[in-house]
Amino acid sequence: MKLSFVGQWVLTGRRRLNPFSGGRAFSSVVNNQWDGGVSMVQGASRGIGLEFVKQLLEKSNKGHVVATCRNPSKATELHDLKNKFAERLDIHQLDLTIDSTIEETAKSVSDKYGYLNLLVNASGILTVPNVIQPETTLNKVERASLLLAYEVNAVGPILVIKQMWPLLKAGGGTGTERDAAVVASISARVGSIGDNRLGGWHSYRASKSGLNQLTRTVSVEFARKKDPIICILLHPGTVDTDLSRPFQRNVAEGKLFTKEFSVQKLLAIINSVKTSDNGKFFAWDGKEIPW
Amino acid sequence: MKLSFVGQWVLTGRRRLNPFSGGRAFSSVVNNQWDGGVSMVQGASRGIGLEFVKQLLEKSNKGHVVATCRNPSKATELHDLKNKFAERLDIHQLDLTIDSTIEETAKSVSDKYGYLNLLVNASGILTVPNVIQPETTLNKVERASLLLAYEVNAVGPILVIKQMWPLLKAGGGTGTERDAAVVASISARVGSIGDNRLGGWHSYRASKSGLNQLTRTVSVEFARKKDPIICILLHPGTVDTDLSRPFQRNVAEGKLFTKEFSVQKLLAIINSVKTSDNGKFFAWDGKEIPW
Ligand SMILES: NC(=O)c1ccc[n+]([C@@H]2O[C@H](COP(=O)([O-])OP(=O)(O)OC[C@H]3O[C@@H](n4cnc5c(N)ncnc54)[C@H](OP(=O)(O)O)[C@@H]3O)[C@@H](O)[C@H]2O)c1
Ligand SMILES: NC(=O)c1ccc[n+]([C@@H]2O[C@H](COP(=O)([O-])OP(=O)(O)OC[C@H]3O[C@@H](n4cnc5c(N)ncnc54)[C@H](OP(=O)(O)O)[C@@H]3O)[C@@H](O)[C@H]2O)c1
Repeated sequence: MKLSFVGQWVLTGRRRLNPFSGGRAFSSVVNNQWDGGVSMVQGASRGIGLEFVKQLLEKSNKGHVVATCRNPSKATELHDLKNKFAERLDIHQLDLTIDSTIEETAKSVSDKYGYLNLLVNASGILTVPNVIQPETTLNKVERASLLLAYEVNAVGPILVIKQMWPLLKAGGGTGTERDAAVVASISARVGSIGDNRLGGWHSYRASKSGLNQLTRTVSVEFARKKDPIICILLHPGTVDTDLSRPFQRNVAEGKLFTKEFSVQKLLAIINSVKTSDNGKFFAWDGKEIPW
Repeated sequence: MKLSFVGQWVLTGRRRLNPFSGGRAFSSVVNNQWDGGVSMVQGASRGIGLEFVKQLLEKSNKGHVVATCRNPSKATELHDLKNKFAERLDIHQLDLTIDSTIEETAKSVSDKYGYLNLLVNASGILTVPNVIQPETTLNKVERASLLLAYEVNAVGPILVIKQMWPLLKAGGGTGTERDAAVVASISARVGSIGDNRLGGWHSYRASKSGLNQLTRTVSVEFARKKDPIICILLHPGTVDTDLSRPFQRNVAEGKLFTKEFSVQKLLAIINSVKTSDNGKFFAWDGKEIPW
C-alpha cells in the first residue's frame, strides 16, 4: 500500500463539502483506499474499547480495525475476534505510558495502510488496585494518583493523536460514509467542571478535564489547518464494565447501560458527526455536555 | 497561640450569615484572633504573588502574611518587605514539587497562628527555559512538559489547599472583613475550554483546566461540610511579569496590566466574595469566565 497525496479534491463517491459553501475546506485526501476504511481503537483489551472493535467488525462486512492494548498476549477476547475476522483485524501493543509503543503503532499503521479514518481513544483508569482509589475527600488526594490518572487519561491519548495525525490527515473520510476522519476521545461527564455538583474523584475528574482541554486544543489546530479531521469527546453513560463495577450500587434503575447499547449510541454519533461538531463534548444520547 | 474551637456561632463584630436565611451555615470559627487576619501567598518570590504580599501588607496597618517561595535566600524583594514589615511577614520555603515543604509550611503556620483566613495560590509556570516552551502545534507536545505543567500548576496548588484546609476551616473570616476564609487559585483565561478559540499552549492550558476542576471539586466538599471557606479561581488579565514577557508583543494596546493594577482588582474580588461565589472562575474585572 503506497500513499499518494493529492493537492486537490478527489471524488470518492461520497458527498464532499464545498469549500465555498461555508463548510470547512479540507486540504488533502488520499487517492487509493481500503474499502470501508481503517479504524483504530486504543484501549481495546476489554470494556468499551473491546466493544468498539467488535461492533466495527460486525456491523459491516468491510473496513479494517487496528486494536491496541497493553498486553496483547492476555487479550483473549481480541484474539477470538482475530480468529473470526482474520485480516480485517490487527492487534498491536500500545501502553499509554510508553512513548515508543505509540510511535511503533503509528509506524505499523502507516506501513500497512498508509492512513487512518477513525481513532477512538477508549482507554481510561479510575481505580488501580493498591495505586489509585477514587478520592472521597480532599484528605485522600495524593500527588502520585493525580499524576498517574493525568498521564493515562489525558497525556497518553493526546500523544496517540499526535502520532496518528499525519495518518488521519491522509485518510480523511476516504472509504467511509463520513466526510472526514474522526478522533473520538472517551471522556466522562464527571470531567465536566460546570456539571460538577458532587465533588470527589479528584484525580479522575481533573484528568478528564485535561483530556477535554487537550482534545479541544488540537481540534482548533486541525480546523485552522483545514485538515480533514473532526475531533469529539464522548461520555458513554454509566456502562457495565470493570471500571464502573465498584460503583454500580449507586446507579439508578435503568441507568446502567450495557457495553453493546452504549457503543451503538457512540458509533451513531461518530458516524453522523459534522464539521460543526469539531471540538465538542457529547453524551451517549447526542446531547452536548457543558465544559 | 492556642486554638479553641467552638461548636456555635461566635460574634466577632462582623456581619454573620444567618444559617436560616438561605446563606451557608459555617460549622466552626476560632475564638481568639490575629487582628486583620492571617493570609498566605504561595508563589511569592516575584510577579503577581510578590505583589499580593506587598498590597496585603501596605493596604492595611494590620494583618499577617505568610509568603512562600522555592528559594527564600534568593527572594530579595521579599526580604526588603521583611525589613519594612518585620513581624507582620513570615517567609517560608515551599516547592510545589516537594510534599514535605508543603507539610512543613502548614505545621509552621499552625504552630504560630493556629489558623488561616486567606490562601492565594499564585505560583505558575508557562515557560521553563530548556524544559517547557508553550507549544505552538501538536507536533511539539511532549509527555514531560504536559506532566511538569500539570504538577506545578494543578497538583501542587491542590496539595497546598489540602494541607491548609484545617487552618482555613479554623480561621474562617475571623479578624477580617470577610464572612469566610478565602482560597483564591490564580488560573488563566486560556485554561477555559469553552473559550479556547486559538489552540496551542497545550501543557499550560490543560494544567489550568485541571486546576479549575480540582478547585471546583474541593469547593463542593467545603460547601457540603459547611466549612467557612469560599474557593474561587481568578484570571489576572495579561500582566507585565516574567511569565508574560516573551508574549507581550501580541498584546493589544492598553491590555497589558501592571502587577499593581491586576492585584488591586483581584484583592477587591477576594474581599467582596460571597458564599454564592464559591467554586466560580472570575476575571480581574469580576466577570465570570466559562469553564
Ligand atoms: N464504564 C463507565 O461507566 C464509564 C463512564 C464514563 C466514562 N468511561 C470511560 O470510558 C473509557 C473506557 O472505560 P471502560 O469502562 O471500558 O473501562 P475498563 O473496562 O476498565 O477498560 C479500561 C481500558 O483502558 C486500558 N488501559 C488502562 N491503562 C492503560 C495504559 N496505560 N495503556 C493503554 N491502555 C490502558 C485497559 O487496558 P488493560 O486491560 O491493559 O488494563 C482497558 O482496555 C474510559 O476512558 C473511561 O474513563 C467509562
Ligand atoms: N502574567 C500573566 O499575564 C498571567 C496571565 C494569566 C495567568 N497568570 C497566572 O498568574 C500566576 C502568577 O504568574 P506571574 O505572571 O506572576 O508569573 P512569574 O512572575 O513567572 O512568577 C511565577 C511564580 O511561580 C513560582 N513557582 C514556579 N514553580 C514553582 C514551584 N515548583 N514551587 C513553588 N513556586 C513555584 C515562581 O517561583 P520562582 O521565583 O522560584 O521561580 C514565581 O514566584 C500564575 O499562576 C500564572 O499562570 C499570569
